[in-house]
Amino acid sequence: MNYSYVSHLYCPKCENTYSTNEVNQLCECGSPLLVAYKMDDLKNDFKPGMLLERTPDLWRYHELLPVEDQESVVTLGEGMTPLLHLKKAGKEMGIPNLYMKDEGMIPSGSFKSRGAAVGVSKAKELGIEALAMPTNGNAGAAWSLYSAQAGITPTIVMPLDAPEITRKECVAAGADLYLVDGLIGDAGKIVGRMVKDYNIFDASTLKEPYRIEGKKTMGLEIAEQFNWEVPDVILYPTGGGVGLIGIYKALRELQELGWIDENKMPRLVAVQSEGCAPIVRAWNEGKSSAEPWENASTVAFGINVAKALGDFLILDAIKETDGCAISVSDTEILDELKTLAENEGAFVCPEGAAAFTAARKLREQNWIGAQDKVVVLNTGAGIKYPNTIEADAPVLQKDEKIVRN
Amino acid sequence: MNYSYVSHLYCPKCENTYSTNEVNQLCECGSPLLVAYKMDDLKNDFKPGMLLERTPDLWRYHELLPVEDQESVVTLGEGMTPLLHLKKAGKEMGIPNLYMKDEGMIPSGSFKSRGAAVGVSKAKELGIEALAMPTNGNAGAAWSLYSAQAGITPTIVMPLDAPEITRKECVAAGADLYLVDGLIGDAGKIVGRMVKDYNIFDASTLKEPYRIEGKKTMGLEIAEQFNWEVPDVILYPTGGGVGLIGIYKALRELQELGWIDENKMPRLVAVQSEGCAPIVRAWNEGKSSAEPWENASTVAFGINVAKALGDFLILDAIKETDGCAISVSDTEILDELKTLAENEGAFVCPEGAAAFTAARKLREQNWIGAQDKVVVLNTGAGIKYPNTIEADAPVLQKDEKIVRN
Repeated sequence: MNYSYVSHLYCPKCENTYSTNEVNQLCECGSPLLVAYKMDDLKNDFKPGMLLERTPDLWRYHELLPVEDQESVVTLGEGMTPLLHLKKAGKEMGIPNLYMKDEGMIPSGSFKSRGAAVGVSKAKELGIEALAMPTNGNAGAAWSLYSAQAGITPTIVMPLDAPEITRKECVAAGADLYLVDGLIGDAGKIVGRMVKDYNIFDASTLKEPYRIEGKKTMGLEIAEQFNWEVPDVILYPTGGGVGLIGIYKALRELQELGWIDENKMPRLVAVQSEGCAPIVRAWNEGKSSAEPWENASTVAFGINVAKALGDFLILDAIKETDGCAISVSDTEILDELKTLAENEGAFVCPEGAAAFTAARKLREQNWIGAQDKVVVLNTGAGIKYPNTIEADAPVLQKDEKIVRN
Repeated sequence: MNYSYVSHLYCPKCENTYSTNEVNQLCECGSPLLVAYKMDDLKNDFKPGMLLERTPDLWRYHELLPVEDQESVVTLGEGMTPLLHLKKAGKEMGIPNLYMKDEGMIPSGSFKSRGAAVGVSKAKELGIEALAMPTNGNAGAAWSLYSAQAGITPTIVMPLDAPEITRKECVAAGADLYLVDGLIGDAGKIVGRMVKDYNIFDASTLKEPYRIEGKKTMGLEIAEQFNWEVPDVILYPTGGGVGLIGIYKALRELQELGWIDENKMPRLVAVQSEGCAPIVRAWNEGKSSAEPWENASTVAFGINVAKALGDFLILDAIKETDGCAISVSDTEILDELKTLAENEGAFVCPEGAAAFTAARKLREQNWIGAQDKVVVLNTGAGIKYPNTIEADAPVLQKDEKIVRN
């Protein structure tokens, strides 16, 4: 019984393999690398019943994670976020079996903490002492916080327009923070140059192979929370797309282990904003990779990614599951966010609201059926985005009274 | 097997009893009311092993909660927050067995959601259609969100200085929000007048008897997470003190059920700010109730409560457990907050930082021993308090590069 059953890294494009015991970034061919596990051993040794007495965090799946020594684990208690049946919102949308996987209830208030927990833990295990990454804010915050616990020095570069709270998180954790007057792609170029100049580990999305393993735990949890019967549809707000790729990978692994039905996959939906929809465009044009989006801009800043390194993996996952890609407008996003708070008391992030709006639209188009079991990923807490809500309120003096109309 | 084993309400001062099937506020004698359960039936019917297959939220303890019909439950997935062993921070403080119960990972990012979940669910069960409350921000936000799901109309009155994000949460949820140019006591007077004028339910701290039952689940969880062996010390940032009263109540109930050792209680510590320390003053003077604090002011806004209705219950809980009350300065709070983020990657709220500082001081005084198992309550997420951190960062142009010193 090992803590991890990790086997090796492999390239999904050229099938080259690499060791997980040394520092690796991209494949020689330029593709992201994925993690393989010893599935035959796992089939023998790892059973669902073993989870029952484990703590409700993502490390309950340690056999299916790449960290080999439990001592390497850096944790803030991330994972096993609620899967909530939204009865009122579902009724209103005509989707009675509507569920929210609420990633707001996680360290740093963003699902980015999953990738950071596993990515930083593995970086610590590999002896990495410094890393750098571009970010739209939340990933930088999460990697800064976990790096602090691990004793790793992070350099974070984020757009000036990224949510302001994420700057505070980086600085609180002691990260070296830089702002760039541009988009995440511009931040990526600055990081690319820096990691070469100073020989630092590049923790950019999919340039390091382990954060996807952290993200994949969303898929493991959804399966476990539905008692190993997967839902019909999963909607995911898609920027870099690591979560969607991870959920797909998780479900394939569970099929291989025989924990879920090998003949049923949820239809995976990549949700983007109309202001930045490269995956949707590629999907509609039947392409297997995406062109960069020009002049990307959206209120859902976390999915403002003009070009995703894993575009081909996203498009493949959608195709293989009979899913789709769909975009929504900023107005729809902000309206949906307010509607959800009023109906359910759920204050979601704009990216999560985008995914809810997509569910509404796909139901209207009958792409989602009336009896489908539908899971929407809310990828972060609304409290990180104060600007989505206007809050004018009357100011009373101490001796005033409230007069209701 | 009932969903709840609630029995009745009783007054801890005059021992009067009331029904839980009708709307009650304070006792006729002016004291808060507490909830009693059918403990003999519970001893027979309720066993720790039953929790194993339940979801990781506070409703896993439904037998020990006052909501009788599961259909009344309003939930956003609150509870079973992480209990983290802080090895680095503990080593630095000389408390190797230092744990944080992290209430930042809960809906609305504040432990107030526990009280709101149970309080609003019971209000819904009792047919309450509108409620009003004064708040330092977080409770109002939480009660607004849960009320939205329950279909109850909330009126919230908070000081102008309350954390701005909490205004947004109230408004997002559709609450009637008022700001007052004063302190929570002033907000309380305005609410007191309004509930009389319009015959509305008064959900002020301890004027409604059920939020304490929600807060008490922190105590149930700490006991369960330590496998029914309680820690030596629990530190709690104390404003209204409902959490401390609740934890004490929970542990007494667990003792009565025989789930924990009847001879061991953790020493409970009420932590306040030097700018508002009425409980500490009363404790030091050996009094059983507290005088209002003049000109209350602290960066830990959530504990800026000049007069707590449950002061006598707080002081009693401290006394009965051989605990203590201690105050810390705003400077210490902000320093501790930064130290924790740098050491552990934990971005806590100022109230939580106050409790950590108190642990540090009590260790220095040897009131906390080197081998004591110590739990600090971090009552909310740091991301709700952006102003605790200054974040100046260099701004780069797209073609600039990072130059390290």
